[in-house]
Formats: sequence, C-alpha cells, structure tokens
Amino acid sequence: MRIFAGATSFLYTEYQYVGIFMIAFAILIFVFLGSVKGFSTKSQPCTYEPLKFCKPALATAAFSTIAFVLGAVTSVISGFLGMKIATYANARTTLEARKGVGKAFITAFRSGAVMGFLLAANGLLVLYIAINLFKLYYGDDWEGLFEAITGYGLGGSSMALFGRDDPRNPAVIADNVGDNVGDIAGMGSDLFGSYAESSCAALVVASISSFGINHEFTPMLYPLIVSSVGIIVCLLTTLFATDFFEIKAVNEIEPALKNQLIISTVLMTIGIAIVSWVALPSSFTIFNFGTQKVVKNWQLFLCVAVAPVQDVADSCRTGAATNVIFGLALGYKSVIIPIFAIAVSIFVSFSFAAMYGIAVAALGMLSTIATGLSIDAYGPISDNAGGIAEMAGMSHRIRERTDALDAAGNTTAAIGKGFAIGSAALVSLALFGAFVSRASISNVDVLTPKVFIGLIVGAMLPYWFSAMTMKSVGSAALKMVEEVRRQFKTIPGLLEGTAKPDYATCVKISTDASIKEMIPPGALVMLTPLIVGIFFGVETLSGVLAGALVSGVQVAISASNTGGAWDNAKKYIEVYIKPVFLSMQCLLAPKGSDPHKAAVIGDTIGDPLKDTSGPSLNILIKLMAVESLVFAPFFATHGGLLFKIF
Amino acid sequence: MRIFAGATSFLYTEYQYVGIFMIAFAILIFVFLGSVKGFSTKSQPCTYEPLKFCKPALATAAFSTIAFVLGAVTSVISGFLGMKIATYANARTTLEARKGVGKAFITAFRSGAVMGFLLAANGLLVLYIAINLFKLYYGDDWEGLFEAITGYGLGGSSMALFGRDDPRNPAVIADNVGDNVGDIAGMGSDLFGSYAESSCAALVVASISSFGINHEFTPMLYPLIVSSVGIIVCLLTTLFATDFFEIKAVNEIEPALKNQLIISTVLMTIGIAIVSWVALPSSFTIFNFGTQKVVKNWQLFLCVAVAPVQDVADSCRTGAATNVIFGLALGYKSVIIPIFAIAVSIFVSFSFAAMYGIAVAALGMLSTIATGLSIDAYGPISDNAGGIAEMAGMSHRIRERTDALDAAGNTTAAIGKGFAIGSAALVSLALFGAFVSRASISNVDVLTPKVFIGLIVGAMLPYWFSAMTMKSVGSAALKMVEEVRRQFKTIPGLLEGTAKPDYATCVKISTDASIKEMIPPGALVMLTPLIVGIFFGVETLSGVLAGALVSGVQVAISASNTGGAWDNAKKYIEVYIKPVFLSMQCLLAPKGSDPHKAAVIGDTIGDPLKDTSGPSLNILIKLMAVESLVFAPFFATHGGLLFKIF
Repeated sequence: MRIFAGATSFLYTEYQYVGIFMIAFAILIFVFLGSVKGFSTKSQPCTYEPLKFCKPALATAAFSTIAFVLGAVTSVISGFLGMKIATYANARTTLEARKGVGKAFITAFRSGAVMGFLLAANGLLVLYIAINLFKLYYGDDWEGLFEAITGYGLGGSSMALFGRDDPRNPAVIADNVGDNVGDIAGMGSDLFGSYAESSCAALVVASISSFGINHEFTPMLYPLIVSSVGIIVCLLTTLFATDFFEIKAVNEIEPALKNQLIISTVLMTIGIAIVSWVALPSSFTIFNFGTQKVVKNWQLFLCVAVAPVQDVADSCRTGAATNVIFGLALGYKSVIIPIFAIAVSIFVSFSFAAMYGIAVAALGMLSTIATGLSIDAYGPISDNAGGIAEMAGMSHRIRERTDALDAAGNTTAAIGKGFAIGSAALVSLALFGAFVSRASISNVDVLTPKVFIGLIVGAMLPYWFSAMTMKSVGSAALKMVEEVRRQFKTIPGLLEGTAKPDYATCVKISTDASIKEMIPPGALVMLTPLIVGIFFGVETLSGVLAGALVSGVQVAISASNTGGAWDNAKKYIEVYIKPVFLSMQCLLAPKGSDPHKAAVIGDTIGDPLKDTSGPSLNILIKLMAVESLVFAPFFATHGGLLFKIF
Repeated sequence: MRIFAGATSFLYTEYQYVGIFMIAFAILIFVFLGSVKGFSTKSQPCTYEPLKFCKPALATAAFSTIAFVLGAVTSVISGFLGMKIATYANARTTLEARKGVGKAFITAFRSGAVMGFLLAANGLLVLYIAINLFKLYYGDDWEGLFEAITGYGLGGSSMALFGRDDPRNPAVIADNVGDNVGDIAGMGSDLFGSYAESSCAALVVASISSFGINHEFTPMLYPLIVSSVGIIVCLLTTLFATDFFEIKAVNEIEPALKNQLIISTVLMTIGIAIVSWVALPSSFTIFNFGTQKVVKNWQLFLCVAVAPVQDVADSCRTGAATNVIFGLALGYKSVIIPIFAIAVSIFVSFSFAAMYGIAVAALGMLSTIATGLSIDAYGPISDNAGGIAEMAGMSHRIRERTDALDAAGNTTAAIGKGFAIGSAALVSLALFGAFVSRASISNVDVLTPKVFIGLIVGAMLPYWFSAMTMKSVGSAALKMVEEVRRQFKTIPGLLEGTAKPDYATCVKISTDASIKEMIPPGALVMLTPLIVGIFFGVETLSGVLAGALVSGVQVAISASNTGGAWDNAKKYIEVYIKPVFLSMQCLLAPKGSDPHKAAVIGDTIGDPLKDTSGPSLNILIKLMAVESLVFAPFFATHGGLLFKIF
C-alpha cells in the first residue's frame, strides 16, 4: 500500500498545480480567441465558404474553452484511474506469483489492459459526446464546431506535460512511485494526448473538406470509427494472451507479448479496410492548403495502414553500452531506421491525402493503443510486484518469478516508447498542417527570413527543454541522496535493518522537487507558441513548429535509446555478473571494477535520459503544435506585433 | 622531431587516399556537369538573361573541375605548410621557454599567426588568380564564370573532411600528432573551406545580381576585398600582441589573446565600413529567388558587421562537468545563446540583402580568420611544447612556463570552434540559397511531401554521421590501448623506464585506423547529395540541406560543449586536485574516488565529442551544401528519377 499511498500523494499535490494551470489557461483561451472579432456576438461569414454565415468567434472561444477543460479532465481521470488500477495490480501480481508464472502473467497483463482500454474508450466516448453536444448549438456550422473541438486535444495533451515529468529517484519506494507515475500515468496521458490531438487534427481538416462542406456525418467521423474498431480489435487480441493460450513457462512470456503486437496489427489492418469501404464514399475531396485534392477510399486505407508501427517500435530496443561514448553512438545510430520509416509513411500519406492523410496515419498507429498500453503497463507492474515481493520478504522462488516477468517487460516496454515517439511525429505534422490551414498561410517557405529563423530556433528548443529536464532530474536525485544519507545517520538501527526508513519524507522531497522543477520546462513549452505567435506572427511560428518537429524527433529517439543502452549496462551487470558473485557469497561487483563502474554509470545517467528527456520531448512537439492550432485565429488576426511595429 | 615525423607520416598516408578521392571526384564533376546539355560544345542562351548567349555547359564542367582541383590543392598545401610550421614551432617554443614566458609566448603566437596568414592569403590569392584566368576564356559570361568558380569551394571544403577526422588517442606521441593534425591542420582546412565557400556563394549570387548583369568588376569582387582588408587588419592586430606590448607575467597571456579578438573586430568594422563605401555603389540590386531586391551600401555594411563573432565564440567556453548527465545538460544548454545570435544575424542579413547578405555576413565573420587561427593554433603549439619539455626531461620551471602558456590556450582554443561553427551555419545557408537559385526552385515549401521528407531525413543525418565518427574514435582508441599493452608486455624495461616505446607502431595504428574509419562518414557526406539529387530531385535535396543545417548546428555546438565540459572535468582534477596529492607524495587521486572517476570519464569521453564529432559536423553541413550547389544544374536537368518513374 505504501507504493499506492506514495503515488496518490504525489498525484494529489500535482493536481493542485494542475488545477491552477487549467483555470489560468482556460481564461487565456477564452480571452484570446474571443478577441479575434472583438468579442462580437454577431454571426460572421465563414472562412472557407464566405457566402454562408457561421457562429461568432466568441462562441468558438467559449466552446474551445469547454473542450479544453473536458480534454484535461478526461486525461487526468484516465491517468488517475489507470494508476490506481496499476498500483492495486502490483500487489495482486505478487500474490498470484505464489501460484505460478502463468497466473502472475495474466494478472499483470490484464491490469495493463484495463489501463489501455480505459484510456482508449474514455477518450473516444468523451470526444463523441462533446461533438454531439456542441452540434446542438453549432448546427450546420461544422467549421466552427470542429475548430472548437481542437480545444479537447490541447486539454488532453497539456496534462501529459505534468504526467511525464518523472520524479524517479534513487530511493526504493520513490522509485516504485516513479515507475507508476512516469511509466503508467505518464505514458497513458502522453498517448491519450496523441490520440485526442490526431482525432482533432483529422476532424478540423475534414470539416473544410467535402465531408464537412456536404455535411456527411458518417465519413466525417471516420477517425472516431477507426478508433472504435481499434478497441474491438484490441479486445480480441487480448484474448490471445490470456484465454486462448496459457503461459506455462517463463520463456513463453516475451513471445506472447510480441505476438500481441503482431496480432493486433494484422486484425486492425483488416478492420481499417472494412471501415474505409463502409464509412467512406469511394471518392471525395480533402482540403490541401488552399486547394481541394481528390482522394479515393483505398488511398485513405493505405494512409492508415502504412503507419510504421513495427519499425518504430523495434527501433526502441537497444543493447547495453558499457562505455559512455558507445552509448551515445548507439543512441545516435538508432534514429536512422525509424526516421526513414516515418519519412516513408509521411510521404505516402501526404501524397495521397495531404494533412488528412497524416492525421489518419497517426490514428492508425494509435488505433491499437489499448494493446500498446497493455504491453507497456505490464512492465512497471511486474517490476513493482518484484519490489513488493522483496520488501515483504517473500521466498526466493516468488522473487525469481516476478523477475522473469519483469525481464520480459523490459524488452517490450520500449514498444510503448516507439508508439509514443512515432505517433508524436505524425500527430505534430498533422497539427502543424491544420494550424497552417487555419492561420490561412498558403505556404511555409524556408527561404524567407521569418520562416528560417523560426526553423533554426525551433530546432534548438528540444535542446533547451532537455537541458532543463535533465538538470531537474539531477538535482531531485541529489536531494534524495542527501535525505537517504540523513536518515541513515539519524535513524538508529536503519543500517542494521532493525528500524524502518522514513518513506514519507522521501516521497515528499521527490514530489516537491519534481513539481517545482516542472515549471520551467512547462513554461517553455506553453509560452513559446504564444510569444512567437504574438510577437513574430504565424510564418515564424510555422518555422518554429517545423524545426521543433524535425529536430525533436531525433533528440527524443536518441535520448531514449542512449538512456536505454546506459541503463541496460546496469541490468546486464545484474543479470550476468551478480549471480556469479552471489554464488561466491559476495553481493556486489568489487568497487572500481569495470562492471561496477558500468553499473554506476548506467544507474545514474541512463534513467533521466530514458524516462524524462526522451519521452517528454514528444509532448514538447505535440503540445506546441496543438496550442498553435487552437490559437491560430488569434495569431492570424493580432499576431506578429514586432514586424507590424518595425 | 618525433611529433613532426609522426604528423608528416600521417599526412603522407592520408594524401594517397586524398589523391585517389580527388581524381575520382574530379571525373565525376566533369561527367555530371558535362552531361547537363549532352556534352554539347555549342553556346547556349544564358539562364538569367535568355537573350544573351553563354558558354556551353561542357566548358563550365571543365572549369568547375579545374576549380575543384585548385581548391583541393590549395587546401592541402596550406594545411601541410601550416602543420610543418606548427611542428617546428613546438620545439622552438620549448627552447624559448628557457628565456622566459614572454619570449615563449611570442614564439608560440607568431607561429600560429603564420598559419593563419598563410591560409587567408593563399586562399584569397589562388581565388583571385583563378577568377582572372577563367575570365580570359569566359569574357562577358560572368554567369558561367562564377558558376565554375564554385568548384573551388567544393575542393577546399572536401579536403577538410580528411583533415578533421582526428586520430587522437591515448598514447603520448600520437596525442601530440593528433593535436597537430586535428587542431591545426583540421581547423585550418575547415575555416579555409568556409572561407572559400562563402566567397563562392557570394560571387555566384552577385553574378546574377546587378553587379554581374552590368559587369561592374569592383563591386563584384567585394567579398574578396573584404577578405584582403581582413588580412591587413589582422596584421595590425598581431602587432598588439607581440610588438606594442610585452608579456611579462603568466597572467597577462589570456587577456592578451582575448584582446586580439576585440581589437581585430573593432578594426575590421572600420575596415568594412570603408570598403562598403568605396567599392560599392550607394544602391544596387541583389537576386532574391526570382526577383531583384534593392540594397543600399550601408545595409550591406550592416550584414557584414552584424556577424555574431563574440557571442558565438563566447558560447564555446564551458565549465567542468563532474557528472555525465550534467555535462550533457550543459552541452544542450549551450546552444541557446549562439542559436539566438545566429538567428538574429540571419534575420538582419537575409532581410537586407537576401542570400548575398548571408554570404557576406559569413565572410565578415571569417575576415579576421587570420587572428582567429593565430589564437587557435597557439593552444596546441603550447601544449606540444609542454610535451616536448617533459619528454626531453627539461627542468620543472620550464615545464611550468609551458603549462601556463597551455592553460591560457585552453580557454581561447574554444574561440576557434566558435568561429568554425558560427561561420559554418551562415556559409551553409548562403550555399543553400545559391543552390536553390541555381537549381531554379522558386520556393522551398515545408508543406509539400517532397520537401518535408527531405527536412526530417536531413535533420537525422548529423546523428548518423556522429554515430559513425564516435564509433570510429572509440575503436581506434581501443586498438591503441591494445598496442600499448602489448608493448608493455613484450618490450623489456619499458615499465621501468629503461627502454623506449615503439612510437612508430602507435602512430601507424592510429593513422591506419583513422583513415579506414574516415571512409564511411566521408561517403555519407559525399554521397547523400548525389543520391538525393539524382533519385529524389532538387526539392527533396533542398529539404535535406535545410534539415541538416538546422539540426547539425545544434548537434555540433552541444557535442563540442558537452565534450568540453567532460574534458574539463579532467583538467579541473589535474589543476586543483593533483597538486594536493603531489605535495602528499602521491601521484594519483586514489582509485574509485570521485575526482578519479571524473578524470577517467573526462579523459575517455570528452575528447571524441569535442574534437571529432562536434567540429566534423560543420563540414557535413557545409560540404553537402556546396556539393549540391556545384551539381545543381545536373540535378535540375537529370535528377528526381524516382518521381519521374512513378
């Protein structure tokens, strides 16, 4: 229960800050978007069909604000419930481990699945209800309706900013808390954000395409239908892991998890084919930066199906680096294949169906989000189950079982990271495209000074952001080490194992530090689009978004994999070296030995890169794009002050 | 003499490969450019003045090839002579150190200056002669003349690829060789490449602007005049360090070096003002992607003067990081200021005078190249002088003096790196712009699939390239460690200091390894523009160039500074910790202690990042751009095969 109490206490403290942030930002959205037409309550000519009349900008401001709050609340609730389930699951998995590996696996996996389904279903349901409720007011004005809906994406995504910042640290309990908060709630809200954003990007582009213009509601909701089919596919897929086959031995776990990914991809491809055939007209037009592009339904099917799930997911598994520079080289090298895969899928989707193609490609990647999250959440659950077994002083055999579960989880946990990064790249591009459409820019020419300075500064932002987050983790860890040292000095019997450490203080230090350290990088992400948009205008902002996207993806992949390679150095030592020393009745590799040094390095430096800098960059690129999209009308009307003055 | 023999032997082996490469690439240039109009020997209508007749493409192919060879040979000769001077200077500085710090400083500094002036003057002279000789054939066809001259930039720059790859390694002699080759010859050919490229970029844009169209030879040669004034300014500046004032104490060295930078910048600003006033008409037009832009002479003066020398140079001085992750964070953080400085200078120059403005801004930064190189070369010369003093068993006092010279060099050496990176960014952009003009693309719209995939893949290339170079250095170092171990085992008396080690084998291993390991990254740089241009066409290639530029600058700055911070950890230990232990009659910080660990980490991982990955990225971005520029007519005519087929 201690893990649960720690995690909950962390989240409650965090939610206070989240609440303040949410209210402040909701006001900002309302004021900025309302000011576009001077808070007028009169209907205006529509942007894309100037002969028709659309709802006033003030209404869109109000509904965008509501959508923002809805998205934020849905994200927070999903994350909270998921984490609650996961923390219960930790203990249950430990208990089931007494009955055998198979039982323990099913418990851990099903708990992960609950999280996955909860997130996918919740996100879809709230979005569907919101669209239908907003429609009561908007009626035929779909342009305004789906503009307002983009607030949902911003809300869902901005919560991820809080969830990702990882309070992981060297103390045991706090480490477990960190696993639960960072890996489960964090990854959950990250993927939830991606999901909400890509749906919104697809919807906003569709609303100014033939679906929207001709008011065809079924094809309009194509993105949502794809996601619903995804849920059904994932349900079926889960049965393969838990009911159709039974795990009997430890070595069956990893293949079972990997099969999940393959089965869900195959089934989903069939599902998408059916949906594209049933829900879409055989030919339609898609808005493509000022022109309408004719698209066939089979082309859109290809856009969704081409998403490079396998390649990107695979890329995020790296070896162990026992040398710092080789770890860096390994991380750098790991960007090659996923970038080519992403480039191919972007090229295909972009050529077939412009930004709508990119958005549905992202959705295709995220449609099996439930399975992805099941696999991903499984890892920390097993890891924590092992921690509980150790703390509860359970038998060596049970500890061995949970270790085996955990080992399989480690190789597959990277799959979640692959999903997150790959979808983030596609989502950001789709949002970027939607932003450009909505801000009425006809092209983003690199060879104009306004755009180019945006591009180079945008490419710098991931570095600035990473510098902030890495420094944060470093100083939080330092404080924790001091606290642990203090406890060893002041609590008598702690060193001998007769007294219990003061866990609460450790968790509190970690919580305070991580929330305090969260503010500068959070401010960087949230303020950059506002500052650039207001002072430099939409062209420079386009450059910033493009630069941050193409540079951020590289830093995210390489940081995750460099961190992974360094971190694996420690695991490598533990698995291959420790047992040898254990049998020699010596618990540790000798100090100063190469394996020991590698372990120290891996432990200290791999985690912050892998768990904080890498994943939080996804959020940087997505969040800046969705924020720009939401504020696009404001920037287009009132932005670019500096250039207007000079 | 051992250092000199080692360095020379390295360069001779290298030059065999260089020769083969040069011949192969010269043939490629001739064949590819000749094929643009099917090897026709007839005159054709000019591109920008279709009513006039220009020389045949075959002639441009031939003269481009000649210019390429000229550039390559000039770069090689300058590098070789400079290194020869520097290696002689090492020993002379050691000898002068017996007479006092002041004498030693003057020797070290003057030797560096010889290298600097040699490079600047050689580059300028050969370029001026080439233009005048080519003009005998081309006559009034300046479009063709200056197109052919771009080959000079490619030649000068491609040699830098060979010079930068650093064979630095843990063995003492080989380390000195590495210093000479990497820091002096490498930095020299890098800056020489930048200089040749920015001159060519400026000339090619000017040739299709009013200077070229109206055949105004003096303003046409404005870039060369700026460089000549730079040489005179640097000559004057040098006198301040060696003749006007005398260094009497150790603590006067660093200020003297820093003053060099300030004095040369101030004098140069005056010089540029005079040149802009005398050589330029008060108003003229500059080609700006399809249109002609009116520029005033004071605007062009501002472009040259705005180059952010100080900011970028300053950015490349970092503290010591005793923690790996803080070093990374420090490196990431260090990109912020220089990127903003570069962005501001790009915006100003771009807005005033389009790509011509960028090119002359780069030239402005490089105009004081002679002073920059003097300061930069001073460092390794002093360092090696110290090495010689140690090996020659000279008195403790002399060693102390060379150490003091070296310490001042360390803080100023980073200035050279700042020059190299900042100018590389501006040069690449200017070349990129010239490429776009020459390939007849009217805009580079990020929101087209062809350009976007180029952008994201281009942003990936610096990572791929760095992964290759870091792996190279790692494995070269590994081989060296094995050789040193072998020598300790097989040479009796080596450990006791009674026998001499086999230096020749160490240098040979290092040479072979570095040349062998040089091929993959070299091939990546040289083949990427060719493959992308031929198969994907000029739009995708534009994307690749823009992506590599905006991402490469960040990686270069952060790698240099992360490496510097890690490396400084070692120096920090040596300066602050070692003396303490020395006085306790203990030569080393105890194994396993934090300072010792920091020293180990700093020594192993800082160097490859700082000396190889960081600086060689400059060459990646510049070389790809200049290669694209040279081959632009070929790509525009025969490129984009893949899209033509499908």
